[in-house]
Amino acid sequence: MSELAVRAEKLDGADELAPLKSRFVLDGAVYLDGNSLGALPAHVPGRVEDVVRRQWGELRIRSWEESGWWTAPERIGDRIAPLVGAAPGQIVVGDSTSVNVFKALVAAVRMADEGRDEILVDATTFPTDGYIAASAARLTGRTLRAVTPAEVPAALGARTAAVLLNHVDYRTGRLHDLPALTAAVHAAGALAVWDLCHSAGALPVGLDEHGVDLAVGCTYKYLNGGPGAPAYLYVRSDLQDRFDSPLPGWNSHADPFGMDPSYAPAPGAPRGRVGTPDILSMLALEAALEVWDGVSVEAVRRKSLALTDFFLECVTACTEPGRVESVTPAAHEERGSQVALRCADAGDVMKRLIDRGVIGDFRHPDVLRFGFTPLYVGFAEVERAARILGEVLG
Amino acid sequence: MSELAVRAEKLDGADELAPLKSRFVLDGAVYLDGNSLGALPAHVPGRVEDVVRRQWGELRIRSWEESGWWTAPERIGDRIAPLVGAAPGQIVVGDSTSVNVFKALVAAVRMADEGRDEILVDATTFPTDGYIAASAARLTGRTLRAVTPAEVPAALGARTAAVLLNHVDYRTGRLHDLPALTAAVHAAGALAVWDLCHSAGALPVGLDEHGVDLAVGCTYKYLNGGPGAPAYLYVRSDLQDRFDSPLPGWNSHADPFGMDPSYAPAPGAPRGRVGTPDILSMLALEAALEVWDGVSVEAVRRKSLALTDFFLECVTACTEPGRVESVTPAAHEERGSQVALRCADAGDVMKRLIDRGVIGDFRHPDVLRFGFTPLYVGFAEVERAARILGEVLG
Repeated sequence: MSELAVRAEKLDGADELAPLKSRFVLDGAVYLDGNSLGALPAHVPGRVEDVVRRQWGELRIRSWEESGWWTAPERIGDRIAPLVGAAPGQIVVGDSTSVNVFKALVAAVRMADEGRDEILVDATTFPTDGYIAASAARLTGRTLRAVTPAEVPAALGARTAAVLLNHVDYRTGRLHDLPALTAAVHAAGALAVWDLCHSAGALPVGLDEHGVDLAVGCTYKYLNGGPGAPAYLYVRSDLQDRFDSPLPGWNSHADPFGMDPSYAPAPGAPRGRVGTPDILSMLALEAALEVWDGVSVEAVRRKSLALTDFFLECVTACTEPGRVESVTPAAHEERGSQVALRCADAGDVMKRLIDRGVIGDFRHPDVLRFGFTPLYVGFAEVERAARILGEVLG
Repeated sequence: MSELAVRAEKLDGADELAPLKSRFVLDGAVYLDGNSLGALPAHVPGRVEDVVRRQWGELRIRSWEESGWWTAPERIGDRIAPLVGAAPGQIVVGDSTSVNVFKALVAAVRMADEGRDEILVDATTFPTDGYIAASAARLTGRTLRAVTPAEVPAALGARTAAVLLNHVDYRTGRLHDLPALTAAVHAAGALAVWDLCHSAGALPVGLDEHGVDLAVGCTYKYLNGGPGAPAYLYVRSDLQDRFDSPLPGWNSHADPFGMDPSYAPAPGAPRGRVGTPDILSMLALEAALEVWDGVSVEAVRRKSLALTDFFLECVTACTEPGRVESVTPAAHEERGSQVALRCADAGDVMKRLIDRGVIGDFRHPDVLRFGFTPLYVGFAEVERAARILGEVLG
C-alpha cells in the first residue's frame, strides 16, 4: 500500500460525511462527474414511483391540491434556500437555467435606473448565459459587453444596468469572489445576477448575507435532482415587488384560477413562476433534496477542499512533471469543487479513464474535468483516480 | 335499464376504440377531466422506473448518448407530429406552453415584414397566452390588440404582424376554424400562431395541410403525458431558417458542445430548444405516446363527436329544462372534445358530482366542464355522468 493510499484510508476514517455515501446508488466506478449529473439518491426511485402510480394514476387532478403539486415550486425553493444562504420565500423552482437567466436579467435591467444602457456578462461564462444575455440585451434595447470577472470592477460605471456572473467557472473550476464583486456592482449602482450552477451544494453561497440581487442555478449537479431537473430563481425579498417578469405566465398571476384576462403579478417568490410545473422532474428533485437533512454546507465545503487538495497532491505524485497542468486555482478561496487539468489528447485520455472506471468529463479543447461531490466521494477514490490517471498517461 | 342505458351499451359494443381503455389505469369513477390531466397509461410507471433506476442511477451521464436523452426533444416531437398533421422535423418538445408561446410569438413578429406593428390575440384565450403575448408585444415594440376569433378577419390589415389563436376554447369547448382563419391571416400578409392545447389528441389539426406557421401545445391533456409534461413547438419547415428565438439557449446551438461564446443557431426543429431538457418528465411523455400506436386521429374524432352528442342528449333527458345550458356549440364543426354547461351554483354542483364519482371541473364563474377522451371514455360512462348530474341537480 502506497503512502498516499494509507493517507487516504486515514482521511476516510476521519471523514464525518462518509456515512452519507450510503444515501446514494453507486457502483465500483469512481464517479467524478457529479458536477455534470449528480448520482441517484437511493430513496428517489420509490418516491417517483409513488408520484406516478398514486398521485397521477389514482388521485389524478386532485393531486394539484392533495399532493401539493400546485405549491411545489415555492416549497422546493424553500428547501434549496438554506443551501445557498437564503431565507425562505425568495426562491422558486421551475424551467431551465437558461430560461431563468432570461427572467432574472430582463427583470434586473427593468429594476435599474432608466439611463443605464449596458449589461456586463462574464466573458468566460458557460455559453448559454452569454447567448441569453445577448437576447435580453437585444429585447430591452441595451448593449451587452463581455468582460472577465477580473475586469468587472474597472468596467462598471454609470452606464451599467446589470452584471451577470458565474460563481464558479464551469471549465476551470475557479471560484469568483461573490461578496467583493457584488459590492463593486452595488457601488456602481447596478444589479448583480449570479449563476450558481457550479457552486450550489458544493460550498456556502451566502446570497442574503452578501446582498445578491438575483440568482439562478441548476439542480442536477451538486444537488442531485436528476437529469434536466428544474432550475431555480432567487429574487431578494425587497426586490420582489419590482420583479417585472418577461415571462408572466398564468402560474405567476395573483389569482391564477380567476382566469382574469388582465395580468396582475403574485406577490413573493411565485412571481417568478411561468407555466404549469413539470411535476415528475420537480418531485424527484424534492425527494433528492432530502439527502441534505442534517448536512452542513460548511462541512461539505471543508471536505470538498480536502478532496481537491488531496487530488492535486496525488496527481503530482502519480504523473510525470509537465504531463498535466492544473488550470484550477491552488488558493482555496479561488477554488470551487472541481479540478480541471489541461492535458494533451485530453479527449482520448478521458475515454481511457472512463474505460478504467474513473468517470470525469472532457471539455473542449484540452481539459480533463473532475468534479468532487463531498456527499459521496471519498479519499480512497481520489487516490485511485489519480493513480489510474498516472497509468493512463504512461 | 333505461332506453339511454340500452343505447349506451350498444354504442360501446360497436366502438372500435373501446379496447384502448385497457391501456390506461382507471378506477370506478367516470373521469371526464382528461382535458385537464390525462389518465395514466398503464405501461408508464415501469418505463419511468427504468429511466430513474437504470438510465440515471446506473448509466448516469452516459445516458445522454446511450439512452437517447440528448435527442429526446426532437425525437418525441416527431412522435407527436402525426397526431397534429405535421411531417417529421418540425416539432420540438420542451419547456411549458407559456414559454413556447413566447418563443413562437416573438419569432413570428421577427419573421413579419418590418412595418407591421400589431399583434392580434384571441380575447377569449386561456389567460396565459394573453399575458405572454402582452410581454412579447412590449419587448418587440409592437401593439397588442385582443379580438375574438370571429372578429379576426375584420381586424386583420397591413399593420398585422402575427395572430395568436386557440384551436379550441378552453372554457366553452368551441372549435375555431383553423383552415379559414389561417388563410385569412395569410391573405393579410401576417403569420398565424396556433395554440393546440385543447385540440391535439382529440381531433385532426392538419398543421401542414393548412399552412400553419407556428404552433404550440401542451401534452398533459389528450396526450396523457403526465402532470406538467413538457409542451411542444411547431415551426413550419420553410420558416425554420428564419426562426430567430428570443430564448437562444445552448441546446439550440449548431454545435452545443463546442462551447462557442458566440451563438450560431442549429438548423431545423432543435433551433426551438433552450436549456437542458427535463428528462424524467420528457421520457414519461415519450412512453405515454405509445398508446397512440395504431390509433387513427380520425377515428378518435368520430368517437369524440359521438360521445359529446350522446352526452348532450342524455343531459337534456336527465335534467329539468333550463337548469343547465350548454355553452358548447351544437354544430360538429364548431365543437372540440368537451362540453361546458352553464349552471347556477356550478362550483357546488361540481363538488357533489365528484363526490358521486363523476370527475369534471369547474371554471369560474358558472361553468361545469366535462372533457371526453375517446381513448378511455365509453358511452355507458357518459350516460352515467348525465344521470348523476340530473340527480345532483334534483
